[in-house]
Amino acid sequence: MPDDHPSEIRIVAVLGLGLMGGSLARDLHARGVRVLAWDRDESAVRAAMAEGIAEPVSWSEPIDAVVLAVPVLAARNLLAAVARQADGARLITDVGSTKSSIVRAAQEMGIGARFVGSHPLAGDHRSGWNASRAGLFADAAVYLTPTPSTGDEALRLASALWTGVGGRPQVMDADVHDARLAWTSHLPQAVSTALALALAQTDSRPADLGPGGRDVTRLAGSSPEMWADILLDNANALGSALEMLIDQLQRMRAAVADGNHADLHRLLSQARVWHEGDGR
Amino acid sequence: MPDDHPSEIRIVAVLGLGLMGGSLARDLHARGVRVLAWDRDESAVRAAMAEGIAEPVSWSEPIDAVVLAVPVLAARNLLAAVARQADGARLITDVGSTKSSIVRAAQEMGIGARFVGSHPLAGDHRSGWNASRAGLFADAAVYLTPTPSTGDEALRLASALWTGVGGRPQVMDADVHDARLAWTSHLPQAVSTALALALAQTDSRPADLGPGGRDVTRLAGSSPEMWADILLDNANALGSALEMLIDQLQRMRAAVADGNHADLHRLLSQARVWHEGDGR
Repeated sequence: MPDDHPSEIRIVAVLGLGLMGGSLARDLHARGVRVLAWDRDESAVRAAMAEGIAEPVSWSEPIDAVVLAVPVLAARNLLAAVARQADGARLITDVGSTKSSIVRAAQEMGIGARFVGSHPLAGDHRSGWNASRAGLFADAAVYLTPTPSTGDEALRLASALWTGVGGRPQVMDADVHDARLAWTSHLPQAVSTALALALAQTDSRPADLGPGGRDVTRLAGSSPEMWADILLDNANALGSALEMLIDQLQRMRAAVADGNHADLHRLLSQARVWHEGDGR
Repeated sequence: MPDDHPSEIRIVAVLGLGLMGGSLARDLHARGVRVLAWDRDESAVRAAMAEGIAEPVSWSEPIDAVVLAVPVLAARNLLAAVARQADGARLITDVGSTKSSIVRAAQEMGIGARFVGSHPLAGDHRSGWNASRAGLFADAAVYLTPTPSTGDEALRLASALWTGVGGRPQVMDADVHDARLAWTSHLPQAVSTALALALAQTDSRPADLGPGGRDVTRLAGSSPEMWADILLDNANALGSALEMLIDQLQRMRAAVADGNHADLHRLLSQARVWHEGDGR
């Protein structure tokens, strides 16, 4: 399908060359798209230039799409500058893990027609240009969250942008997205961080963990800059999720304290039933 | 070093052919050791026989070592039977994730001189013979926990047994082991289970998780039979660990509820410092 190929996307401005923006720049460049890049840290842009992947951003170029790839609260501020400067771009999007606030901001800034939020479900706990790599978005779900006034062209371009780098776009309401991601992404991050904080109060080091413990604590290595923004931007939904998690931990603690094998076995079994429930 | 080669271990009884016992049986067989196997589920023994890996256990054979590879509370009961029947074995050991109670039981049963507890830090959330595989113990730390009366020969044989399948044995006091593992293994298991229980109360399915969420919930797929035993057998230490984890989650919840970016950033940073602290 021609709509799924980014042939009408020739120049993309990628603002922020971290894990997400850097990986996107690599994949776009590999597919013949000109990438104009900016980063708060100029050395990231120089590194991308040295690899021949990107040129410094220039707003006088005929930019087709702008991708904001900075932490979510910074993205809101950057969006105001983009709204003024990228008046020719037919698509403005981002890669943030929360979507309601930036969709609302785009609408309020009067660029709702050209804006679509994007959240590629890709990446890992590493961050920065040095962590970026080709193929990061291969087969990744990418949530697209339109504003109330997103135009057909912007939505089509957003879909083409992500399909072109191997992603699987899926349109979703921004508020629904944030409510879901509070559970499926932000809560797991908070749990992994809390476990690392608890372990840090003992003499346990990461090297003492087995493979299981390493997996559960892996996200604790994530970027504090990125995640402080995300967790705060989704504070209400995450707060409820944290409360429900604490309730479950209290149930387990009670079963352990009471020596109640049947209760504990039932809790472990319920968790496993959920875990096996996707048929993978 | 000849001491590190299991040449003096020619016949090993493996009681329990799950992930741990089954994998050990595969590796021992591959190195020329005769494996005599028992499992509560006879089909596991038949499967091992069909692959030519093991024969049914017979206590009249000159068994050098007995390895109990069943859930930890079951292992205590099985130990009593082994103490009566395997009077020729120079080493009796296990693979359980808690060590104090079985070390104490062995001592009380009068087999302390021939008993050494073993805890190989290997495996994953899968269980059963079908999950067993060659090489599971390659480069895995294996904690060896002697009884007050463990003899030199038993300790040497235990070390040789695990070194022979690629493990890295390390002698540790059983109580110290359990206090540490409450943090580095049992708490991560409880956290992963609690997160899955919380997610099960929403409409979130495992397939909705990104790579990070999948890692944090992976242990929720672990065997309820095995883990109910472990968590209860280490109830005191785990109870304290769960309380400290809940405290950390409350701190994060407070920072999120207060919109306190500085606090949240500091918590995320402390967790990351811990995570990066092992120099891997």
